Amino acid sequence: SATFDSTEHPHRRFNALSGEWVLVSPHRSKRPWQGQQEETAPDQRPAYDPTCYLCPGNVRVGGEVNPPYTDTFVFNNDFGALTPDVPTGGINEGGLLRAEAESGICRVICFSPRHDLTLPQMETPAIRKVVDLWVEEFTTLGARPDINYVQIFENKGAMMGCSNPHPHGQIWAQRTVPGEPAKETAQQLAHFQEHGRTLLSDYLKIELEQKERVVIENEHFVVLVPFWAVWPFETILIARRPVQDVTQLTPDERDALADMLRRLTIRYDNLFSISFPYSAGLHQRPTDGQEHPEWHLHMHFFPPLLRSATVRKFMVGYELLGDPQRDITPEFSAGRLREQSELHYKAAQ
Amino acid sequence: SATFDSTEHPHRRFNALSGEWVLVSPHRSKRPWQGQQEETAPDQRPAYDPTCYLCPGNVRVGGEVNPPYTDTFVFNNDFGALTPDVPTGGINEGGLLRAEAESGICRVICFSPRHDLTLPQMETPAIRKVVDLWVEEFTTLGARPDINYVQIFENKGAMMGCSNPHPHGQIWAQRTVPGEPAKETAQQLAHFQEHGRTLLSDYLKIELEQKERVVIENEHFVVLVPFWAVWPFETILIARRPVQDVTQLTPDERDALADMLRRLTIRYDNLFSISFPYSAGLHQRPTDGQEHPEWHLHMHFFPPLLRSATVRKFMVGYELLGDPQRDITPEFSAGRLREQSELHYKAAQ
Ligand SMILES: O=P(O)(O)O[C@H]1O[C@H](CO)[C@@H](O)[C@H](O)[C@H]1O
Ligand SMILES: O=P(O)(O)O[C@H]1O[C@H](CO)[C@@H](O)[C@H](O)[C@H]1O
Repeated sequence: SATFDSTEHPHRRFNALSGEWVLVSPHRSKRPWQGQQEETAPDQRPAYDPTCYLCPGNVRVGGEVNPPYTDTFVFNNDFGALTPDVPTGGINEGGLLRAEAESGICRVICFSPRHDLTLPQMETPAIRKVVDLWVEEFTTLGARPDINYVQIFENKGAMMGCSNPHPHGQIWAQRTVPGEPAKETAQQLAHFQEHGRTLLSDYLKIELEQKERVVIENEHFVVLVPFWAVWPFETILIARRPVQDVTQLTPDERDALADMLRRLTIRYDNLFSISFPYSAGLHQRPTDGQEHPEWHLHMHFFPPLLRSATVRKFMVGYELLGDPQRDITPEFSAGRLREQSELHYKAAQ
Repeated sequence: SATFDSTEHPHRRFNALSGEWVLVSPHRSKRPWQGQQEETAPDQRPAYDPTCYLCPGNVRVGGEVNPPYTDTFVFNNDFGALTPDVPTGGINEGGLLRAEAESGICRVICFSPRHDLTLPQMETPAIRKVVDLWVEEFTTLGARPDINYVQIFENKGAMMGCSNPHPHGQIWAQRTVPGEPAKETAQQLAHFQEHGRTLLSDYLKIELEQKERVVIENEHFVVLVPFWAVWPFETILIARRPVQDVTQLTPDERDALADMLRRLTIRYDNLFSISFPYSAGLHQRPTDGQEHPEWHLHMHFFPPLLRSATVRKFMVGYELLGDPQRDITPEFSAGRLREQSELHYKAAQ
């Protein structure tokens, strides 16, 4: 009958965090696919690769030698998109051609000396060391007067533009606040000013009542498929306590974050029995010297796969020109992720 | 010395049409690439493929039979992301979980009965028929009271999620105005209210003076790499006359549009001697019954390739979490496109 049903009818969902919309087409998930099939990368890597520029002891492109590190290792990207010493200046032609010099620092973080591992294959204490390094880096970079925003992220898998399979992430820290965190600041600020609570506290409360989009929980964090998810298996990790950035996490909370990273990424790998590609990153308060009580620490996971290890979602024509679009519902995706085991499929073999 | 130089120093550019920024890192174009190599699709197709659901006379998935069409052919997408008969309704939990039913129509346009062609391999009069069909479709769909925006686009190539190589485009027409044209409406309206001229008229004037980003011109249209281009070889086609939509084009202007489509797509194919993948689409006034004198018809081309037929630009980690980023400058890209021949590389062989 003529009642709107979000599991059946096309609809738009509002992203309360960014202020944007996504088009959801649940009825479309059964269309045939004759398009591009992704290659599944051969997943047998040695523990040490003499040609890898991230392995301990190896020489990087710039001539520097990596130390014989035993857990994590961080250094300035030899080909950073941002550099610290940029002369100030810009262009402005009638407000229509506008450019501004931008300065910043790009860092690379090796998660492990082992070339053959990924986060889901590492033990929780080893992942905790990655969390500790994020805290250190956010502290040091964020304290610089020329750095007003610190973006910590990971591109995992060749499909996500990762140029080296050695487990690593990146940090791009810069003078201005980029568009995505700027939108989230505006949305969070409006909510905080109206309600005196962070937007994500109130959102999390509803999600924990409804349960259908929640994937995993521990004492300090919740992972769920956001109501407004764009990517098929997109998730968001939200701190239960409304902290603004990782420096405010207690030692217990850091352990809990490592636990969640491990459990979530194992579920991702198990979904299609493949090293699951994604881009993921923390969103935290700008380091512009303001308090930002509206900001609520969270982490986004944007994985491209849709139906299997070889069929991905393409963000193309309509998505680039109109709005992001998805076929399966966020509720369906959450169910799939909830039913996965937390024993990694390779360990189970 | 310490003078800002946009061909050398990292900077941000403002997209006057969308109101967003792009990070440009000119110094970064020489970083080594060990990441994913794209497959170059075998480009030998028969003129007729009995298994293709778009070829004349063939049966589609839904059981319908394509007519023996001789130029263009349009039909409702058998797996449309939008459908016309959606019960109204929605969800609203505290302003944080918000959804709205969305209705619309998805159409597929075959550009040619020939399975083996693409736009750059078609003659101008045949492309003109595609333009004529766009006009007809925009007129009919736009006249419906339940359609307030009509998005005409093409995904070309497997890399851009195209699920069938038969030359075709799509139309998604819907009740609401999607995010991208909504942003462009806001920016164009603000400019029009301040200056009494369209934003793109004033922008085009500057570009035609500066010349360095212009790729091709004819009497009625200009193609250029926009100052704020995100994709490596992104271009924008702008009507010289500030018309709001394709229905206002004179017969001469329609011919000129077909001419530009042919010349631009030949240059694209010639750049890396490959059938060049892209997503492209027209941006036109909303069909919401308002006048929209601020709107200025244009067409975007978003091609993913960066350095060669096998190395693409990935919009991943930083791009999804921060801002879009590019390495080569728009001026460099415009130069590369300008130096291409307008004789298709296959015809030249
Ligand atoms: O409609 P098609 O060609 O099957 O699908 C393609 O274009 C659509 C519109 O841009 C996208 O949503 C799909 O991800 C893409 O694969
Ligand atoms: O820095 P990498 O790993 O060489 O490069 C990768 O991540 C960057 C940041 O998301 C992107 O700009 C590149 O397109 C991608 O290939």
